[in-house]
Amino acid sequence: MINKLCIIGIGLIGSSIARAARKQGLCREIVAFGRFDDVENLKKAVQLGVVDSFYTDIEAAVEQANYVIIATPVGAVENIFKLLKPLWNEQTVYSDVCSTKGSVVAAANAVFKQVPANFVPAHPIAGAENSGVEAGDDSLFLNKRLIVTPLASTSKTALDKIVHFWTDLGAEVSEMTVEHHDKVLAATSHLPHILAFALVDLLGKKNETEEIFKYAAGGFKDFTRIASSDPTMWQDICLANKQEIIPLIQQLQTELGNLQQMLEHDQGQQLFNTFTYARNARQRFLEQSK
Amino acid sequence: MINKLCIIGIGLIGSSIARAARKQGLCREIVAFGRFDDVENLKKAVQLGVVDSFYTDIEAAVEQANYVIIATPVGAVENIFKLLKPLWNEQTVYSDVCSTKGSVVAAANAVFKQVPANFVPAHPIAGAENSGVEAGDDSLFLNKRLIVTPLASTSKTALDKIVHFWTDLGAEVSEMTVEHHDKVLAATSHLPHILAFALVDLLGKKNETEEIFKYAAGGFKDFTRIASSDPTMWQDICLANKQEIIPLIQQLQTELGNLQQMLEHDQGQQLFNTFTYARNARQRFLEQSK
Repeated sequence: MINKLCIIGIGLIGSSIARAARKQGLCREIVAFGRFDDVENLKKAVQLGVVDSFYTDIEAAVEQANYVIIATPVGAVENIFKLLKPLWNEQTVYSDVCSTKGSVVAAANAVFKQVPANFVPAHPIAGAENSGVEAGDDSLFLNKRLIVTPLASTSKTALDKIVHFWTDLGAEVSEMTVEHHDKVLAATSHLPHILAFALVDLLGKKNETEEIFKYAAGGFKDFTRIASSDPTMWQDICLANKQEIIPLIQQLQTELGNLQQMLEHDQGQQLFNTFTYARNARQRFLEQSK
Repeated sequence: MINKLCIIGIGLIGSSIARAARKQGLCREIVAFGRFDDVENLKKAVQLGVVDSFYTDIEAAVEQANYVIIATPVGAVENIFKLLKPLWNEQTVYSDVCSTKGSVVAAANAVFKQVPANFVPAHPIAGAENSGVEAGDDSLFLNKRLIVTPLASTSKTALDKIVHFWTDLGAEVSEMTVEHHDKVLAATSHLPHILAFALVDLLGKKNETEEIFKYAAGGFKDFTRIASSDPTMWQDICLANKQEIIPLIQQLQTELGNLQQMLEHDQGQQLFNTFTYARNARQRFLEQSK
């Protein structure tokens, strides 16, 4: 049993962690820390019973906490580390949930000179396009992957604690390097989000002059779901992982250029081959994700 | 009551039309025509009770049919018109379900010199990523849009019959020009499909050397659903509507180039504005599609 869990930032992910931990009976006390301008959301977290109490004062929030989970947008992490630094407790386990791990490690290096041994970078591969404490879901992590990216300096004890914590929340834990994580996620998550935002930005402008959305079907709805994701969060992720994302945008531009060429030259067989390869690749993905 | 409905091509859409028409009790007899090499699928259509009988001989299939619906991939339509030409019956209403209307009208012009008055170009805005007669669904068109694109030469009687037919299947019928249809669908359907195929083609190749799909989440699954669509059908659609699709690919390339620039120059505010615009645009789409 964890005596006190402190969640920094009680949005979709923070709220889901609190709900899942409560459902599993993992913690005696769950508290939230947030900025003063997030106080409505924090109050709602208490009203909904997601956390026991909230603080806008970091010192009170983390006092005697056994686990501190940073669940803010990635751009806020460095400031959170600065707030935590004077209060850093060797007995506490710290972790985060950010979609980019290189930037979190860089922020920790910047603030602490080196990443503290009791900070475990982690990322649950789960989410939704909705935001805020009300969007939380106690089964969000059930049978989903959680990636930990420990460093050579990470304490084995802290790592084990975080692995057990997430296993208790229902996640399947994988371990990989920070670099590998950021490369993989750029491809499977960051690039698709940028594409969805780009497409809906383009079509939204067309829709202002011509009614095109009226004739869009279910395929369009699913395809663009991730374009409803939180803009602040995604601004941060994209900037934080731009080294991995930019080459992928370029590769996709090449791919689109190739398809355009096939259309221009009526190369039906090449189109068919590309579409068939993609269809089969997605089938492999579906079989793997069962 | 329609005495005899003949469906040419009994895949996902043809099968769904037959099932919905049967459920609504619209027809005394429903028959399917298909190529000899599609005979297994045709047999299945009879076994499943989707149609009463099937023919690989076009003359027997359309004999005394009141309605003939062409539900083949768009690339096959010109050949179907050639088969139908010597058997063309002024008392029969003909229609199609293709995703590109310009190419269907061009095929009719090529075969008949001018589009017959009793042929009504139509397109149900509904689909699924699965193919074949078994994928059919009697509620596929319920509360979905059906676009008719009549020409100046189209018979009012034939148009009314097709509008009523689809209304009886549960669809909401809209009318627009062939050109407008192809422009709108290029944006809301054809471009998203190309993007999904392009992305999964790119990532599928990466997955062959690195395990990236293993760490893809629900967002990726939804985003790529349409990449599981039938390659033959989409090869045909893309080639048939390439005049509208190519400029959109170019516009999307520009959009992606702009996002890349924002990343390269750390323009967080611009990224935020783009993502926010897209999120709001999608919200408008969701409200409209309720």
